[in-house]
Amino acid sequence: MSPASANLTIRGRNANWTTNYPLDFLRNAAYAPVGMLLTPKKLQRRTAKLRDPEGTRQSLLQAAFREVYRYGFQSAGIDAILAATNVTKGALYYHFESKEALGHAIIEEIIAEITKDRWLRPLQQSKDKNPIDALIGIVQAIPARPRDVKRGCPLVNLTQEMSQLDEQFRKRLERIFQAWQEGIATALRKGQYTGTVRRDLVPEETASFLIAMVEGYEVLAKNAQDAKVWNLGIKNIVSWLSSLRAPGNGKRG
Amino acid sequence: MSPASANLTIRGRNANWTTNYPLDFLRNAAYAPVGMLLTPKKLQRRTAKLRDPEGTRQSLLQAAFREVYRYGFQSAGIDAILAATNVTKGALYYHFESKEALGHAIIEEIIAEITKDRWLRPLQQSKDKNPIDALIGIVQAIPARPRDVKRGCPLVNLTQEMSQLDEQFRKRLERIFQAWQEGIATALRKGQYTGTVRRDLVPEETASFLIAMVEGYEVLAKNAQDAKVWNLGIKNIVSWLSSLRAPGNGKRG
Repeated sequence: MSPASANLTIRGRNANWTTNYPLDFLRNAAYAPVGMLLTPKKLQRRTAKLRDPEGTRQSLLQAAFREVYRYGFQSAGIDAILAATNVTKGALYYHFESKEALGHAIIEEIIAEITKDRWLRPLQQSKDKNPIDALIGIVQAIPARPRDVKRGCPLVNLTQEMSQLDEQFRKRLERIFQAWQEGIATALRKGQYTGTVRRDLVPEETASFLIAMVEGYEVLAKNAQDAKVWNLGIKNIVSWLSSLRAPGNGKRG
Repeated sequence: MSPASANLTIRGRNANWTTNYPLDFLRNAAYAPVGMLLTPKKLQRRTAKLRDPEGTRQSLLQAAFREVYRYGFQSAGIDAILAATNVTKGALYYHFESKEALGHAIIEEIIAEITKDRWLRPLQQSKDKNPIDALIGIVQAIPARPRDVKRGCPLVNLTQEMSQLDEQFRKRLERIFQAWQEGIATALRKGQYTGTVRRDLVPEETASFLIAMVEGYEVLAKNAQDAKVWNLGIKNIVSWLSSLRAPGNGKRG
């Protein structure tokens, strides 16, 4: 095995092999140039990464998400991500073959999950509940801490920045919007069937109306950098949601 | 006068002096190093810029707006702006002392004007009209060409990118949102007074609800890169606006 191929294997996902890697071999490797000899502390750190490739990947992904969330994708600094995670550039590019691949993973593994956690799973779990009550509960549970409001919605941030610039980003973001809309529309349709939701509304259009309002208020609150703006938005959205109840069915907000 | 101070004056806003500048002096200047001797064509172009500093400033501002609109402020390239305008870096920094100053001018002189043109002036000019009719007309007149929809709303783009990063940007963008909200609220209040608008709504909150919806649909349409999404949004916004009419007053949409 040439040093080059050994290197490839070290960076590979074969966790068993990595875990069993003979440390003394690295520490005493006869062919390692002086600059490559690792100090025990660095070695310890790097060995920890080698032993847990999935952990390294997750830590890179989270750090990249934070960096992109703050500065946008184009301005996100790879060096800042490496500094935050203490991972080498080589390891980063092993896990994500390009900055774009890292951006796609942020969308599919973090932002899509946020939408699922906040909207789709609660809607699925509230099967027997009036969908208007479920939606009001979901909207009221969107984090409204000042730090959340100040950073805005990660989905809107990336949508505004990347939709026109990169079709691969756009499509991945669109899948999130579509799943979000379908989840809400399905709940509303069910409510129309069971008689809790007004029959005169079109579920898909009402769903996109709700999404537009939530995202629109995220923009206003981000601009104001003020949770009060967000809370006023929620109050208005809840009042609008209440107007979707079938006549004579449920509370009025 | 030293060459340095002559240079400062050439870049100055003294249009009279610039217009009267003796070209032969430049063409034959004894102290000009060889590399600085201008070819007639370049000279002609540069002279035109010198003769119209306000035109140069406007052309820089428009090119910078297009660049920022497409790539965002942080990723906007000064070189791309110079290439698009055929202006020197020195002239750019004469008109705008920093990239930030250029960004501020884009907000105050272009984006604020778009909001005034589309919303505030039509609202002021429709004094005797039912404000709901006026707002419906305004919303329906927002450009819906595919190229507009694809680029999204420049106000939302910059808000999402810069509100958290730079207080100077945030404040300037906030002034636009505030003027926009006040313009709509004033029209609604007038309608409540004359009996055309429902008395049970709070004008400021209804105004921000409308703005949130418009901006939210801009986000959805930009993500879809599809004017159909925007047109469906307008349809829903118009239908919501119609619900603000005082009972028995005006049409129902």
